[in-house]
Amino acid sequence: MSDLETAAALTPRFDANGLIAAIAQDHATGEVLMLAWMNAEALKLTLETGQAVYWSRSRQKLWRKGEESGHTQRVVEARIDCDQDALLLRVDQAGAACHTGARTCFYRTIAPDGALTRSS
Amino acid sequence: MSDLETAAALTPRFDANGLIAAIAQDHATGEVLMLAWMNAEALKLTLETGQAVYWSRSRQKLWRKGEESGHTQRVVEARIDCDQDALLLRVDQAGAACHTGARTCFYRTIAPDGALTRSS
Repeated sequence: MSDLETAAALTPRFDANGLIAAIAQDHATGEVLMLAWMNAEALKLTLETGQAVYWSRSRQKLWRKGEESGHTQRVVEARIDCDQDALLLRVDQAGAACHTGARTCFYRTIAPDGALTRSS
Repeated sequence: MSDLETAAALTPRFDANGLIAAIAQDHATGEVLMLAWMNAEALKLTLETGQAVYWSRSRQKLWRKGEESGHTQRVVEARIDCDQDALLLRVDQAGAACHTGARTCFYRTIAPDGALTRSS
């Protein structure tokens, strides 16, 4: 096992854009809600405040989840993966996680032929 | 809502490297197992065969999950997110998802001060 895999300290590996992927999962139901991105500052704020803060790639600025919608994410538990290039946040989601109003951003299933069906 | 959000056909948005993030989740327990990447070919093969195929960024080649370890992932359901730049695979995981032997790659929790604790 490498140092990254056994380390007892967080040394996240940000990508070429300075970002790391973060999965948000409903801590009570296990439902995967969304995938977003964090830079070092967003990760620091998330850990410090216990509220999810992301980096908006479209707006190129910090995005305090729910700052406009009220649909905040309280972080119940944060996890890092083996090679420290992905985060998992187990959250208490207020309202809808998705900006479309859906509970989860993953509201469509994909058929083998690529057809999409709304599932939630 | 934009076309991407309401579309009934899959039009995945690959990144500058031609990749899209894919979350693998245990379909029975809801446990998030790993985050990996797919190029167009990996996604096509995954949908066609019902077995997870990723793109290995470290090895720069297609990676049929379990091809060496036997720890395959049968895809029970595939989902796409609102803006079609992330995938969620609900899978039947054979053995350990993580190459370290852990059931999930997310086996460490992060304390507010960055200390990591093995949790599963």
